[in-house]
Amino acid sequence: MTTRPDPVRDADAEALAMARALLSGAEHAALAVTDPADGLPGISRIAFGFGPEGMPMTLISSLSAHHGALRANPACALMVGEPGPKGDPLTHPRLMIKARADFVPVDDPDRAALRDHWLTAHPKAKLYVDFGDFGFVRFAPVSILLNGGFGKAFRINPAQI
Amino acid sequence: MTTRPDPVRDADAEALAMARALLSGAEHAALAVTDPADGLPGISRIAFGFGPEGMPMTLISSLSAHHGALRANPACALMVGEPGPKGDPLTHPRLMIKARADFVPVDDPDRAALRDHWLTAHPKAKLYVDFGDFGFVRFAPVSILLNGGFGKAFRINPAQI
Repeated sequence: MTTRPDPVRDADAEALAMARALLSGAEHAALAVTDPADGLPGISRIAFGFGPEGMPMTLISSLSAHHGALRANPACALMVGEPGPKGDPLTHPRLMIKARADFVPVDDPDRAALRDHWLTAHPKAKLYVDFGDFGFVRFAPVSILLNGGFGKAFRINPAQI
Repeated sequence: MTTRPDPVRDADAEALAMARALLSGAEHAALAVTDPADGLPGISRIAFGFGPEGMPMTLISSLSAHHGALRANPACALMVGEPGPKGDPLTHPRLMIKARADFVPVDDPDRAALRDHWLTAHPKAKLYVDFGDFGFVRFAPVSILLNGGFGKAFRINPAQI
Protein backbone atom coordinates (compact mmCIF):
# COMPACT_ATOMS: atom_id res chain seq x y z
CA MET A 1 0.00 0.00 0.00
CA THR A 2 1.09 3.58 -0.59
CA THR A 3 0.55 6.64 1.55
CA ARG A 4 -1.06 8.71 -1.18
CA PRO A 5 -4.50 10.09 -0.30
CA ASP A 6 -7.67 8.28 -1.33
CA PRO A 7 -8.71 9.92 -4.62
CA VAL A 8 -12.36 9.06 -3.92
CA ARG A 9 -14.39 11.38 -1.70
CA ASP A 10 -17.76 10.94 -0.02
CA ALA A 11 -20.53 12.39 -2.16
CA ASP A 12 -21.73 15.91 -1.44
CA ALA A 13 -25.13 17.32 -2.49
CA GLU A 14 -23.82 18.29 -5.93
CA ALA A 15 -22.44 14.80 -6.55
CA LEU A 16 -25.73 13.22 -5.44
CA ALA A 17 -27.68 15.46 -7.81
CA MET A 18 -25.35 14.51 -10.66
CA ALA A 19 -25.74 10.81 -9.85
CA ARG A 20 -29.53 11.06 -9.81
CA ALA A 21 -29.52 12.89 -13.15
CA LEU A 22 -27.29 10.21 -14.72
CA LEU A 23 -29.56 7.43 -13.46
CA SER A 24 -32.83 9.01 -14.48
CA GLY A 25 -31.50 9.88 -17.94
CA ALA A 26 -30.14 6.43 -18.74
CA GLU A 27 -31.95 4.20 -21.24
CA HIS A 28 -29.13 1.69 -21.53
CA ALA A 29 -26.11 0.59 -19.53
CA ALA A 30 -22.91 -1.36 -19.87
CA LEU A 31 -23.06 -4.53 -17.79
CA ALA A 32 -20.01 -6.37 -16.43
CA VAL A 33 -20.48 -10.00 -15.40
CA THR A 34 -18.38 -13.04 -14.66
CA ASP A 35 -18.52 -15.51 -17.55
CA PRO A 36 -19.51 -18.88 -16.07
CA ALA A 37 -17.63 -20.71 -18.85
CA ASP A 38 -14.18 -19.40 -17.91
CA GLY A 39 -14.58 -17.25 -14.78
CA LEU A 40 -13.32 -14.20 -16.70
CA PRO A 41 -14.93 -10.77 -17.05
CA GLY A 42 -17.65 -10.38 -19.66
CA ILE A 43 -19.35 -7.22 -20.88
CA SER A 44 -22.61 -6.39 -22.66
CA ARG A 45 -24.96 -3.53 -23.42
CA ILE A 46 -28.36 -3.79 -21.79
CA ALA A 47 -31.55 -1.78 -21.63
CA PHE A 48 -31.79 0.22 -18.39
CA GLY A 49 -34.70 1.68 -16.52
CA PHE A 50 -36.64 1.54 -13.29
CA GLY A 51 -39.49 -0.37 -11.76
CA PRO A 52 -42.55 1.39 -10.34
CA GLU A 53 -40.89 1.34 -6.92
CA GLY A 54 -37.69 2.99 -8.26
CA MET A 55 -35.49 -0.10 -8.41
CA PRO A 56 -33.01 -0.19 -11.33
CA MET A 57 -34.00 -2.84 -13.86
CA THR A 58 -33.38 -4.34 -17.23
CA LEU A 59 -35.29 -6.42 -19.77
CA ILE A 60 -33.09 -9.16 -21.25
CA SER A 61 -33.34 -12.20 -23.46
CA SER A 62 -32.48 -15.63 -22.15
CA LEU A 63 -30.58 -16.11 -25.43
CA SER A 64 -28.00 -13.51 -24.36
CA ALA A 65 -24.62 -14.39 -22.87
CA HIS A 66 -25.19 -12.06 -19.91
CA HIS A 67 -28.43 -13.83 -19.02
CA GLY A 68 -26.57 -17.09 -18.48
CA ALA A 69 -23.82 -15.29 -16.60
CA LEU A 70 -26.24 -13.56 -14.21
CA ARG A 71 -28.11 -16.82 -13.63
CA ALA A 72 -24.83 -18.47 -12.65
CA ASN A 73 -23.55 -15.52 -10.61
CA PRO A 74 -25.80 -12.53 -9.88
CA ALA A 75 -22.90 -10.25 -8.87
CA CYS A 76 -22.45 -7.63 -11.58
CA ALA A 77 -21.53 -4.03 -12.27
CA LEU A 78 -23.38 -1.42 -14.33
CA MET A 79 -22.15 1.79 -15.92
CA VAL A 80 -24.47 4.59 -17.04
CA GLY A 81 -23.76 8.07 -18.41
CA GLU A 82 -23.01 8.37 -22.11
CA PRO A 83 -20.47 10.84 -23.42
CA GLY A 84 -21.76 13.23 -26.03
CA PRO A 85 -20.10 13.55 -29.42
CA LYS A 86 -17.90 16.49 -28.33
CA GLY A 87 -14.97 16.88 -25.98
CA ASP A 88 -12.87 14.30 -24.16
CA PRO A 89 -15.24 11.40 -23.38
CA LEU A 90 -13.38 10.81 -20.10
CA THR A 91 -14.53 14.17 -18.76
CA HIS A 92 -18.19 13.14 -19.19
CA PRO A 93 -19.69 11.98 -15.88
CA ARG A 94 -20.60 8.33 -15.41
CA LEU A 95 -21.89 6.18 -12.61
CA MET A 96 -20.50 2.75 -11.80
CA ILE A 97 -22.80 0.55 -9.76
CA LYS A 98 -21.93 -2.77 -8.20
CA ALA A 99 -25.14 -4.74 -7.89
CA ARG A 100 -26.82 -8.09 -7.53
CA ALA A 101 -29.22 -9.25 -10.23
CA ASP A 102 -32.61 -10.58 -9.15
CA PHE A 103 -34.66 -12.28 -11.88
CA VAL A 104 -38.38 -11.55 -11.91
CA PRO A 105 -40.20 -14.86 -12.47
CA VAL A 106 -42.56 -14.90 -15.43
CA ASP A 107 -45.44 -15.72 -13.07
CA ASP A 108 -44.50 -12.97 -10.58
CA PRO A 109 -47.68 -11.09 -9.57
CA ASP A 110 -45.77 -7.80 -10.06
CA ARG A 111 -44.82 -8.59 -13.66
CA ALA A 112 -47.83 -6.95 -15.32
CA ALA A 113 -47.19 -3.68 -13.47
CA LEU A 114 -43.47 -3.88 -14.26
CA ARG A 115 -44.26 -4.46 -17.93
CA ASP A 116 -46.59 -1.47 -18.16
CA HIS A 117 -44.17 0.79 -16.31
CA TRP A 118 -41.26 -0.33 -18.50
CA LEU A 119 -43.14 0.27 -21.75
CA THR A 120 -44.01 3.81 -20.71
CA ALA A 121 -40.29 4.61 -20.52
CA HIS A 122 -39.17 2.22 -23.31
CA PRO A 123 -41.99 2.23 -25.86
CA LYS A 124 -39.86 0.50 -28.52
CA ALA A 125 -39.62 -2.55 -26.25
CA LYS A 126 -43.24 -3.39 -27.03
CA LEU A 127 -41.88 -5.16 -30.11
CA TYR A 128 -40.31 -7.89 -27.95
CA VAL A 129 -41.37 -7.52 -24.31
CA ASP A 130 -43.86 -10.40 -24.67
CA PHE A 131 -41.48 -12.78 -26.45
CA GLY A 132 -41.04 -15.94 -24.40
CA ASP A 133 -37.30 -15.48 -23.97
CA PHE A 134 -37.50 -11.93 -22.54
CA GLY A 135 -37.69 -11.29 -18.83
CA PHE A 136 -37.17 -8.54 -16.29
CA VAL A 137 -34.22 -8.41 -13.91
CA ARG A 138 -34.00 -6.09 -10.92
CA PHE A 139 -30.60 -4.76 -9.78
CA ALA A 140 -30.02 -4.32 -6.05
CA PRO A 141 -27.17 -1.76 -5.78
CA VAL A 142 -24.34 -2.75 -3.44
CA SER A 143 -22.04 0.24 -3.96
CA ILE A 144 -21.97 3.25 -6.27
CA LEU A 145 -19.05 5.29 -7.57
CA LEU A 146 -19.51 8.56 -9.45
CA ASN A 147 -16.75 9.69 -11.75
CA GLY A 148 -17.59 13.27 -12.62
CA GLY A 149 -14.43 13.79 -14.67
CA PHE A 150 -10.72 13.83 -13.80
CA GLY A 151 -10.17 14.25 -10.07
CA LYS A 152 -13.90 14.17 -9.30
CA ALA A 153 -14.58 10.68 -7.93
CA PHE A 154 -17.21 10.19 -5.25
CA ARG A 155 -18.52 7.16 -3.41
CA ILE A 156 -22.28 7.10 -2.92
CA ASN A 157 -24.24 5.04 -0.44
CA PRO A 158 -27.04 3.31 -2.40
CA ALA A 159 -29.44 4.38 0.36
CA GLN A 160 -28.75 8.02 -0.60
CA ILE A 161 -30.02 7.61 -4.16
CA MET B 1 -28.62 -27.59 -21.83
CA THR B 2 -31.35 -27.00 -24.35
CA THR B 3 -31.55 -28.01 -27.96
CA ARG B 4 -32.15 -24.53 -29.30
CA PRO B 5 -29.69 -23.42 -31.97
CA ASP B 6 -26.61 -21.37 -31.12
CA PRO B 7 -27.71 -17.75 -31.68
CA VAL B 8 -24.10 -16.75 -32.47
CA ARG B 9 -22.81 -17.29 -36.03
CA ASP B 10 -19.32 -17.18 -37.47
CA ALA B 11 -18.57 -13.75 -38.90
CA ASP B 12 -19.06 -13.17 -42.61
CA ALA B 13 -17.42 -10.39 -44.64
CA GLU B 14 -20.15 -7.91 -43.73
CA ALA B 15 -19.76 -8.65 -40.02
CA LEU B 16 -15.97 -8.27 -40.24
CA ALA B 17 -16.35 -4.92 -41.98
CA MET B 18 -18.76 -3.75 -39.29
CA ALA B 19 -16.37 -4.90 -36.54
CA ARG B 20 -13.44 -3.05 -38.11
CA ALA B 21 -15.52 0.13 -38.45
CA LEU B 22 -16.56 -0.06 -34.79
CA LEU B 23 -12.96 -0.52 -33.67
CA SER B 24 -11.46 2.22 -35.80
CA GLY B 25 -14.18 4.68 -34.80
CA ALA B 26 -13.89 4.12 -31.06
CA GLU B 27 -12.24 6.76 -28.86
CA HIS B 28 -13.39 5.22 -25.62
CA ALA B 29 -14.55 1.86 -24.33
CA ALA B 30 -16.30 0.27 -21.38
CA LEU B 31 -13.90 -2.00 -19.49
CA ALA B 32 -14.96 -4.94 -17.33
CA VAL B 33 -12.46 -6.21 -14.77
CA THR B 34 -12.41 -8.38 -11.69
CA ASP B 35 -12.13 -6.25 -8.56
CA PRO B 36 -9.19 -7.62 -6.54
CA ALA B 37 -10.79 -6.43 -3.29
CA ASP B 38 -13.84 -8.69 -3.52
CA GLY B 39 -13.45 -10.82 -6.68
CA LEU B 40 -16.61 -9.27 -8.14
CA PRO B 41 -17.11 -7.62 -11.52
CA GLY B 42 -16.06 -3.99 -11.85
CA ILE B 43 -16.64 -1.59 -14.72
CA SER B 44 -15.09 1.66 -15.94
CA ARG B 45 -14.85 3.94 -18.95
CA ILE B 46 -11.43 4.13 -20.53
CA ALA B 47 -9.81 5.89 -23.45
CA PHE B 48 -9.42 3.56 -26.45
CA GLY B 49 -7.15 3.62 -29.43
CA PHE B 50 -4.38 1.76 -31.20
CA GLY B 51 -0.63 1.52 -31.13
CA PRO B 52 1.45 2.08 -34.27
CA GLU B 53 1.36 -1.69 -34.91
CA GLY B 54 -2.46 -1.79 -34.67
CA MET B 55 -2.78 -3.27 -31.18
CA PRO B 56 -5.75 -1.97 -29.14
CA MET B 57 -4.57 0.23 -26.28
CA THR B 58 -5.55 2.57 -23.52
CA LEU B 59 -3.91 5.31 -21.47
CA ILE B 60 -4.87 5.05 -17.81
CA SER B 61 -3.98 6.55 -14.47
CA SER B 62 -2.53 4.42 -11.69
CA LEU B 63 -4.99 6.24 -9.39
CA SER B 64 -7.93 4.51 -11.12
CA ALA B 65 -9.68 1.46 -9.71
CA HIS B 66 -9.32 -0.42 -13.00
CA HIS B 67 -5.53 0.09 -12.97
CA GLY B 68 -5.25 -1.83 -9.71
CA ALA B 69 -7.66 -4.47 -10.97
CA LEU B 70 -5.72 -5.05 -14.20
CA ARG B 71 -2.43 -5.19 -12.28
CA ALA B 72 -3.90 -7.91 -10.05
CA ASN B 73 -5.64 -9.77 -12.89
CA PRO B 74 -5.03 -8.82 -16.54
CA ALA B 75 -8.09 -10.69 -17.84
CA CYS B 76 -10.68 -8.15 -18.92
CA ALA B 77 -13.41 -7.37 -21.43
CA LEU B 78 -13.91 -4.28 -23.56
CA MET B 79 -17.02 -2.96 -25.28
CA VAL B 80 -16.91 -0.39 -28.10
CA GLY B 81 -19.67 1.02 -30.31
CA GLU B 82 -21.71 3.89 -28.93
CA PRO B 83 -25.41 4.18 -29.68
CA GLY B 84 -26.46 7.46 -31.20
CA PRO B 85 -29.15 9.63 -29.63
CA LYS B 86 -31.94 8.14 -31.79
CA GLY B 87 -33.64 4.77 -31.96
CA ASP B 88 -33.43 1.76 -29.67
CA PRO B 89 -29.85 1.74 -28.31
CA LEU B 90 -29.89 -2.07 -28.36
CA THR B 91 -30.12 -2.09 -32.15
CA HIS B 92 -26.86 -0.15 -32.41
CA PRO B 93 -23.91 -2.44 -33.16
CA ARG B 94 -21.25 -3.04 -30.54
CA LEU B 95 -18.19 -5.18 -30.19
CA MET B 96 -17.35 -7.13 -27.05
CA ILE B 97 -13.71 -8.13 -26.74
CA LYS B 98 -12.24 -10.47 -24.15
CA ALA B 99 -8.62 -9.52 -23.72
CA ARG B 100 -5.53 -9.58 -21.57
CA ALA B 101 -4.01 -6.30 -20.44
CA ASP B 102 -0.26 -5.82 -20.88
CA PHE B 103 1.22 -2.75 -19.15
CA VAL B 104 3.82 -0.80 -21.10
CA PRO B 105 6.68 -0.01 -18.69
CA VAL B 106 7.55 3.68 -18.39
CA ASP B 107 11.07 2.90 -19.60
CA ASP B 108 9.88 0.79 -22.55
CA PRO B 109 11.86 1.78 -25.66
CA ASP B 110 8.57 1.84 -27.62
CA ARG B 111 6.91 4.32 -25.27
CA ALA B 112 7.93 7.49 -27.13
CA ALA B 113 6.50 6.15 -30.39
CA LEU B 114 3.34 4.98 -28.62
CA ARG B 115 2.93 8.41 -27.04
CA ASP B 116 3.28 10.27 -30.34
CA HIS B 117 0.91 7.89 -32.11
CA TRP B 118 -1.64 8.16 -29.30
CA LEU B 119 -1.58 11.96 -29.27
CA THR B 120 -2.24 12.09 -33.01
CA ALA B 121 -5.54 10.26 -32.45
CA HIS B 122 -6.26 11.70 -28.97
CA PRO B 123 -4.91 15.27 -29.02
CA LYS B 124 -6.73 16.23 -25.80
CA ALA B 125 -4.64 13.63 -23.93
CA LYS B 126 -1.59 15.92 -24.20
CA LEU B 127 -2.93 17.62 -21.06
CA TYR B 128 -2.10 14.53 -18.97
CA VAL B 129 -0.14 11.98 -21.01
CA ASP B 130 3.13 12.99 -19.29
CA PHE B 131 1.74 12.96 -15.74
CA GLY B 132 3.65 10.45 -13.63
CA ASP B 133 0.58 8.36 -12.87
CA PHE B 134 -0.46 7.82 -16.51
CA GLY B 135 0.70 4.84 -18.50
CA PHE B 136 -0.15 2.87 -21.61
CA VAL B 137 -1.72 -0.57 -21.56
CA ARG B 138 -1.96 -2.86 -24.59
CA PHE B 139 -4.90 -5.26 -24.94
CA ALA B 140 -4.27 -8.65 -26.50
CA PRO B 141 -7.68 -9.83 -27.80
CA VAL B 142 -8.64 -13.37 -26.80
CA SER B 143 -12.11 -13.53 -28.36
CA ILE B 144 -14.44 -11.08 -30.07
CA LEU B 145 -18.22 -11.03 -30.28
CA LEU B 146 -20.12 -8.64 -32.56
CA ASN B 147 -23.68 -7.80 -31.69
CA GLY B 148 -25.07 -6.05 -34.75
CA GLY B 149 -28.58 -5.74 -33.32
CA PHE B 150 -31.25 -8.24 -32.33
CA GLY B 151 -30.56 -11.65 -33.86
CA LYS B 152 -27.26 -10.54 -35.41
CA ALA B 153 -24.54 -11.97 -33.18
CA PHE B 154 -21.24 -13.08 -34.68
CA ARG B 155 -18.07 -14.54 -33.24
CA ILE B 156 -14.88 -13.14 -34.71
CA ASN B 157 -11.44 -14.67 -34.56
CA PRO B 158 -9.05 -11.91 -33.33
CA ALA B 159 -6.67 -12.95 -36.14
CA GLN B 160 -9.33 -11.83 -38.65
CA ILE B 161 -9.37 -8.24 -37.40
